[in-house]
Amino acid sequence: MKVTAEIRALIERRKAGYSLEAPFYLSEEIFALDMETIFRQHWIEVATEAEIPEPGDYVTVDLAGDSILIVRDDDMQVRAFHNVCRHRGARLCNEEKGSVGNIVCPYHSWTYNLTGALMFAEHMGEQFDRCKHSLKNVHVENLAGLIFVCLAEEPPADFAAMRAEMEPYLLPHDLAGCKVAAQVDIIEKGNWKLVMENNRECYHCVANHPELTISLYEYGFGYARTEANAEGMDAFERTCNERAQQWEAMDLPSVEIEKLLDVTGFRTQRLPLDRCGESQTLDAKVASKKLLGEFRTADLGGLSFWTQPNSWHHFMSDHIVSFSVIPLSAGETLVRTRWLVHQDAREGIDYDVDNLTAVWNATNNQDRTLVEYSQRGAASSAYEPGPYSPYTEGLVEKFSAWYIGRLAKQIGV
Amino acid sequence: MKVTAEIRALIERRKAGYSLEAPFYLSEEIFALDMETIFRQHWIEVATEAEIPEPGDYVTVDLAGDSILIVRDDDMQVRAFHNVCRHRGARLCNEEKGSVGNIVCPYHSWTYNLTGALMFAEHMGEQFDRCKHSLKNVHVENLAGLIFVCLAEEPPADFAAMRAEMEPYLLPHDLAGCKVAAQVDIIEKGNWKLVMENNRECYHCVANHPELTISLYEYGFGYARTEANAEGMDAFERTCNERAQQWEAMDLPSVEIEKLLDVTGFRTQRLPLDRCGESQTLDAKVASKKLLGEFRTADLGGLSFWTQPNSWHHFMSDHIVSFSVIPLSAGETLVRTRWLVHQDAREGIDYDVDNLTAVWNATNNQDRTLVEYSQRGAASSAYEPGPYSPYTEGLVEKFSAWYIGRLAKQIGV
Amino acid sequence: MKVTAEIRALIERRKAGYSLEAPFYLSEEIFALDMETIFRQHWIEVATEAEIPEPGDYVTVDLAGDSILIVRDDDMQVRAFHNVCRHRGARLCNEEKGSVGNIVCPYHSWTYNLTGALMFAEHMGEQFDRCKHSLKNVHVENLAGLIFVCLAEEPPADFAAMRAEMEPYLLPHDLAGCKVAAQVDIIEKGNWKLVMENNRECYHCVANHPELTISLYEYGFGYARTEANAEGMDAFERTCNERAQQWEAMDLPSVEIEKLLDVTGFRTQRLPLDRCGESQTLDAKVASKKLLGEFRTADLGGLSFWTQPNSWHHFMSDHIVSFSVIPLSAGETLVRTRWLVHQDAREGIDYDVDNLTAVWNATNNQDRTLVEYSQRGAASSAYEPGPYSPYTEGLVEKFSAWYIGRLAKQIGV
Repeated sequence: MKVTAEIRALIERRKAGYSLEAPFYLSEEIFALDMETIFRQHWIEVATEAEIPEPGDYVTVDLAGDSILIVRDDDMQVRAFHNVCRHRGARLCNEEKGSVGNIVCPYHSWTYNLTGALMFAEHMGEQFDRCKHSLKNVHVENLAGLIFVCLAEEPPADFAAMRAEMEPYLLPHDLAGCKVAAQVDIIEKGNWKLVMENNRECYHCVANHPELTISLYEYGFGYARTEANAEGMDAFERTCNERAQQWEAMDLPSVEIEKLLDVTGFRTQRLPLDRCGESQTLDAKVASKKLLGEFRTADLGGLSFWTQPNSWHHFMSDHIVSFSVIPLSAGETLVRTRWLVHQDAREGIDYDVDNLTAVWNATNNQDRTLVEYSQRGAASSAYEPGPYSPYTEGLVEKFSAWYIGRLAKQIGV
Repeated sequence: MKVTAEIRALIERRKAGYSLEAPFYLSEEIFALDMETIFRQHWIEVATEAEIPEPGDYVTVDLAGDSILIVRDDDMQVRAFHNVCRHRGARLCNEEKGSVGNIVCPYHSWTYNLTGALMFAEHMGEQFDRCKHSLKNVHVENLAGLIFVCLAEEPPADFAAMRAEMEPYLLPHDLAGCKVAAQVDIIEKGNWKLVMENNRECYHCVANHPELTISLYEYGFGYARTEANAEGMDAFERTCNERAQQWEAMDLPSVEIEKLLDVTGFRTQRLPLDRCGESQTLDAKVASKKLLGEFRTADLGGLSFWTQPNSWHHFMSDHIVSFSVIPLSAGETLVRTRWLVHQDAREGIDYDVDNLTAVWNATNNQDRTLVEYSQRGAASSAYEPGPYSPYTEGLVEKFSAWYIGRLAKQIGV
Repeated sequence: MKVTAEIRALIERRKAGYSLEAPFYLSEEIFALDMETIFRQHWIEVATEAEIPEPGDYVTVDLAGDSILIVRDDDMQVRAFHNVCRHRGARLCNEEKGSVGNIVCPYHSWTYNLTGALMFAEHMGEQFDRCKHSLKNVHVENLAGLIFVCLAEEPPADFAAMRAEMEPYLLPHDLAGCKVAAQVDIIEKGNWKLVMENNRECYHCVANHPELTISLYEYGFGYARTEANAEGMDAFERTCNERAQQWEAMDLPSVEIEKLLDVTGFRTQRLPLDRCGESQTLDAKVASKKLLGEFRTADLGGLSFWTQPNSWHHFMSDHIVSFSVIPLSAGETLVRTRWLVHQDAREGIDYDVDNLTAVWNATNNQDRTLVEYSQRGAASSAYEPGPYSPYTEGLVEKFSAWYIGRLAKQIGV
């Protein structure tokens, strides 16, 4: 990896507690470095198991320039391959999702089975060795239904630690028993790190997210105590403690785990929701009548799971909202949102898609605007890193610190 | 400023009297140099006072990568700031124009007053010093209602000299008492210098501008004397002299001032108009019944004011047409045209927008086409600088010479 | 020509019999090199004589950044000029085709005659020498109605050899007596070499071209003999021999000439067509009742002519389909297809445009998809050159070998 002295200097002089210098948001050179050192070297959340329920079901994901084919094989195992024919390199599957018996190249009909082995290739002569032309594997992990891939030759080993900590939180919500009720892709004209920084604080929520703050307590993400809000903050703390005890009794862990500076960095926490407290909807009530897994109670608050560098997920009693961030260029980022409900829930009877998606569609669009304002601002010669709030932007700092730390480690600063 | 030997050589070998070599029109590297040495170091005309009549009224202008916020403060003074929040850098005002009480960042509600001081920022803790987080100023000058900004730390000092010479010409037209009746932005797919070269000659007028040449004498901009046109040229000269005496008597200066090679280069001249001589319209009559300032006479010809590097303006008895050129990339340029009439003129009664804008909308579109033909031609390997006409393209040469001279000075060739 | 060590290494290590390494398809730097060493140094087929039947008729072609003006002069000769005014460089003719008396610059009316001489330029003064401002010539050749241009100072000398070999094959089809019945331009999002590789094999035809394979024998382009197809291949060979004798008797040469590795590389062959064998149409019958030249017989099979680096053509008894490939960027290529019929054929009576164009419009769109799948695949980090079939992809290898050989020669590897 060739890295200029200029970029090394930018990494070295990064000031903790401040937003990053402009080139981190603008430079295509640093974007290429981000792809090489962050997105090709870490575990990246890209899909959910619910998208490929049957053998032969596949999704394709574009990540760091590569197309990855994620497919369920005949033994129900999730596999990932580079989506490239070994003949003249045509992309094999050219849709975002679909279902196949074998993987057949559209160009000259080279045919691979669901484990990636080349079964058939015409006209190639006697010398040709089929065994040397299997599809190339991509590392893949399935954590309670969330699918992570890693393009590195040797993926970070601490995925197992994350799995051990997270499964007790996630498994009760039974993502594997869900279906995708809705998926929305938006392309934000901003750097992926601005998308992530935006996700890691709720300082902007009061002024920007009227729909989200119906159910979300603004106190849950760091807040400066003032005379005016002291009463509210105390009440929130009491609610947290009460609810935690109730959840504990149902074997639902809620205590915060914060490992954001691990190589495979993550954080989780179950927090109460406001009003009737059931779900992130416009009335804070469940959006789907069919509760997930074996739940009997609707007011389980929101279990959130945030991963470095690119995802977050909210697990409720009735549905799951799952967000994957896929960088496209220095100034463009795909945010893919999926709403999952119980696979037996019936659209129009048990749930209504508009109601299910209302809060996060609105919130995503509001965040997109803020990210775009930030991207525009960073392009100004007058931009300089500004101070993160010590109260409300502590997790933003943890994101930026993780990012700079990983970059430094990878390139040997 | 790092400049390659190749670019230095291009500057050094520029041949006077010939159009520029192709890289000056095509190269993104030279475009960046143009922004750095021309558009960030000189006074750039970007707006008119009439666009922000009241306190809190603002316009935003994108110039050389920066967004500049031009606002009228509570003391009626025109101020300019970098349009960037000092917190995490979000762009503050995201519309082209508007009106505000204070300047409030849409992201986390940091609030600045109209002098740029930070008044309010929540959650920032005890250590935070508001005074160190004011908006950053941009130099701004108001010349008889034309607003110039300068992004340099030390702007060129000769703005005062231009003001002293130009105010007697411009002030009688009372731009400050005008309103914007129409604004049209067009993006020409050509380098900004081709837009400017096009503006600095009327050699192309006869074949291309049927609407403009109704009122504009082709003789006014340099012409080779031939037997065929000798009579016409003599008549034009007599007209000029007669009209100059009449204007002098009204305290309206008309004599040419040509300072195009000054750092803050400019030129002015009041010339008679053809036919009834009142205005640059399809019938050469005034487009607005309400004359500007204290004028009582409609046939005042056209007072033109051209500035280096990016503007020109025609002041008539009834309206003003003001053009600002904003480079966007090596091959794209914004041309912003505003038509101003007396602030008390009533649309549909005193003036009709279609009639007011007909000549210059047509002319701008014709010029756009010519600029685009030139840009395409310059991209050919067969293009080489061709000779400017010694008669009709003398002011084009003055533009190119000013540009090359300023470039050479800035980078120390 | 400055070429990086990296590119030299890519050229040197190219493995015969395998598709090219990814940068040959993706890199804008190599694209620039392709333009410089391939498209500016070789004979490039860009138009047909039928497009400019009368004096003053012209077409413009964008090639390797240059606009070339191809015009028929008053002596009926085909001429080619750089489409750039010698004054300030405006593009002279800004349409794809048209008809002019003289060539008049739209900017300041400089006027050139059809041999490129400057006839008129106003306001230029006594010193100005018109003779030094003629249009710049481009080398042009007319091979049996196919127009080739060459941007090199010294074009490859072996065009004459190609002419000598090809005229006996092509002239009987009398392209000069044809008119363009239809032209379709498509822009494929793939590198030009992928477009050419696709053209040089029919391995992909069975699975992708149901319309084309109505008339085209799949055996005609290399095929692995198997038990299953032995009978078909033998029958095809017998048909070829029989038909060749019949054509020979009509003075229509059919034997393959394969000079694909010459500097001006080409290949030709007349092959029988399937079914009733007349033409490449949906029913294999002629699309135009008016046969070309002096033909009296419709079933003349298909005479194909392929050139390096960018064209192919199918000459039948009733019509000609002519394809020119024009690279636009590393990832975009223009494919221009023209269908020519006898100039006296009447639309709606002798031929129907939809019927005439059905097969190749469908085939082009199918090929576009395959080229785009290949381009996407090449962008993957997992792509590596794969083996060409020794049976069906021999001519693809000849294209790639020619390309690499020419590149190596030009830059001195």
